[in-house]
Amino acid sequence: MTTTYRIALDAMGGDLGCGSVITAAHNALKTYPDIELILVGQEEVLLEELARQKKTLNDRLTIHHASQVVEMAEPPALALKKKKDSSMRVSINLVKEGVADACISSGNTGALMATARFVLRMLPGVDRPAITATLPSINGHTHMLDLGANVDSTAEQLYQFAVMGSELVTAVDDNSTPTVGLLNIGHEAIKGNGLVKEADILLKQSDLNYIGYVEGDDSFIGNVDVVVCDGFVGNVALKSSEGVAKLISGYIKEEFTRNILTKLIGLMALPIIAKMRRRLDPRLYNGASLLGLRGIVIKSHGGADHVAFGNAIKIARIEAIKNVPKHISEHIEQTLKQRYEEE
Amino acid sequence: MTTTYRIALDAMGGDLGCGSVITAAHNALKTYPDIELILVGQEEVLLEELARQKKTLNDRLTIHHASQVVEMAEPPALALKKKKDSSMRVSINLVKEGVADACISSGNTGALMATARFVLRMLPGVDRPAITATLPSINGHTHMLDLGANVDSTAEQLYQFAVMGSELVTAVDDNSTPTVGLLNIGHEAIKGNGLVKEADILLKQSDLNYIGYVEGDDSFIGNVDVVVCDGFVGNVALKSSEGVAKLISGYIKEEFTRNILTKLIGLMALPIIAKMRRRLDPRLYNGASLLGLRGIVIKSHGGADHVAFGNAIKIARIEAIKNVPKHISEHIEQTLKQRYEEE
Repeated sequence: MTTTYRIALDAMGGDLGCGSVITAAHNALKTYPDIELILVGQEEVLLEELARQKKTLNDRLTIHHASQVVEMAEPPALALKKKKDSSMRVSINLVKEGVADACISSGNTGALMATARFVLRMLPGVDRPAITATLPSINGHTHMLDLGANVDSTAEQLYQFAVMGSELVTAVDDNSTPTVGLLNIGHEAIKGNGLVKEADILLKQSDLNYIGYVEGDDSFIGNVDVVVCDGFVGNVALKSSEGVAKLISGYIKEEFTRNILTKLIGLMALPIIAKMRRRLDPRLYNGASLLGLRGIVIKSHGGADHVAFGNAIKIARIEAIKNVPKHISEHIEQTLKQRYEEE
Repeated sequence: MTTTYRIALDAMGGDLGCGSVITAAHNALKTYPDIELILVGQEEVLLEELARQKKTLNDRLTIHHASQVVEMAEPPALALKKKKDSSMRVSINLVKEGVADACISSGNTGALMATARFVLRMLPGVDRPAITATLPSINGHTHMLDLGANVDSTAEQLYQFAVMGSELVTAVDDNSTPTVGLLNIGHEAIKGNGLVKEADILLKQSDLNYIGYVEGDDSFIGNVDVVVCDGFVGNVALKSSEGVAKLISGYIKEEFTRNILTKLIGLMALPIIAKMRRRLDPRLYNGASLLGLRGIVIKSHGGADHVAFGNAIKIARIEAIKNVPKHISEHIEQTLKQRYEEE
């Protein structure tokens, strides 16, 4: 017996339209024999694009019609209220109904968060969903959460992020005791704000492989598997790192195009630089997990092309295979039970 | 008539001892005919190092004896209480007494902050000192503050950081209307936590050239002159950016040393890469200003060599010439007056 994992793809949500989703879907079906993909969106638009790409539907690639599209700038509350037949909402509904094991959307993050929370509900004992993504590091990669779903988190929420991140890494990276670090402005115990000091106590009491405070550079050096922080801080860290990557990329280009000689050397160095760029290619890190929900929801970048979207499918598949929500739920339940017994 | 600016150098504070301070001092005296430098520290140690470097004291390079040294890991409260004759404290005392126009220390940041605040006191209307530094950006450079002096800042404090950063940039960069951005997790008004929303209102009401919310990458793209944030967030952003720079630097090295061919190309590309590295060299950005005090205090990196320390002297000199504390004080006073009149 082979198990098949079904993934619903919001085919209308991104900036690039359904073309990149369809291309990514076709490639993924070839790569992963154990998946089935459901294109969610306006049927006529999808059929037209399939015809344009000379691709056909089959047992493993189907369409599920959804008449509406959530706009990129649409307020989440409005999308929730007025777009009940949007490709985003219907994709999440399919997960809720058990038709799909996971869903992916490149749409409006706020609307995706709000809709996923409303439709799927939180896992018992989890207050708020958190966004996490893989970041490249010198030693491999790191998972950081939250990356912007929550601001003004409580210490208890940071603890929940730690459990969720830890279970995700255990499942996805086959790392049974991932190290967890709490993002702070120094490694010493006296450093930090009230929030991290309180969360530090909770984490020390937990059964997680907690290594204490980490600093902003530790994520990229790779001294830790899971970096826990409030969404405001995580988002700033992520965007700052993107800014520096752009800065250095610009410097490389400038220096190699300064004069004829540097251009010539640059031409020779091109494959090397290209290889380096590939290692930092944000498309290979596309696909942020919304953790803490009763179902798997992957946020793909708004501007995701087929390569980027393909990576999001890869993440959705592995989370479905490993049933990440179940593991998070069990871990949180265990914590609550333990706390109850201690009282 | 020529004005001379006197700068007190805590010669004992850094990790590298007084050698790099003395070398930097000698070079700076050659570069800037309008400065005088006071080496503060244990006289016999300084004389020995001067002899070793075959350098002599003169009218413009003098020693001010201080018997103690604040250790790098020493708790600030302890340093404040027990090290009243430390090179750090005495350097700050010289500013307080008007003997020096500015001081620089590579010592323990916490102790420097606490001592500077205790000895010099805050400017009227300023609650807390903030640390700011220059960050490289695609369009030149940006100043970000606070970088870690304060956690759990209030909106009013963020407003004060904005005034201080703005006055610093006006003075140092000859930019009379520097743009000020408030660090947030999106450019839209609905994004962010309570703190930034409250600070946004204060900044909109101010006479600053406030451009609204900026994101983590804007600092490095250079869309803004002054980026305002809580010290926790600023410190994480700064360290994350350092982490990414290390990561990319590591990738460059790896890709250029992969095999004989890449090594050969790497050899040719070496001067180009070196030039790029120089543009990112943290030593050229060494020297963080402690703003909001009744005097100029520059924090140099603990591991600063003579090049890095030289940059800190450059910053201290320009802040002394422009009398940055006076400008901050006048601006804050004007705000308070205006608010008082409006009430």
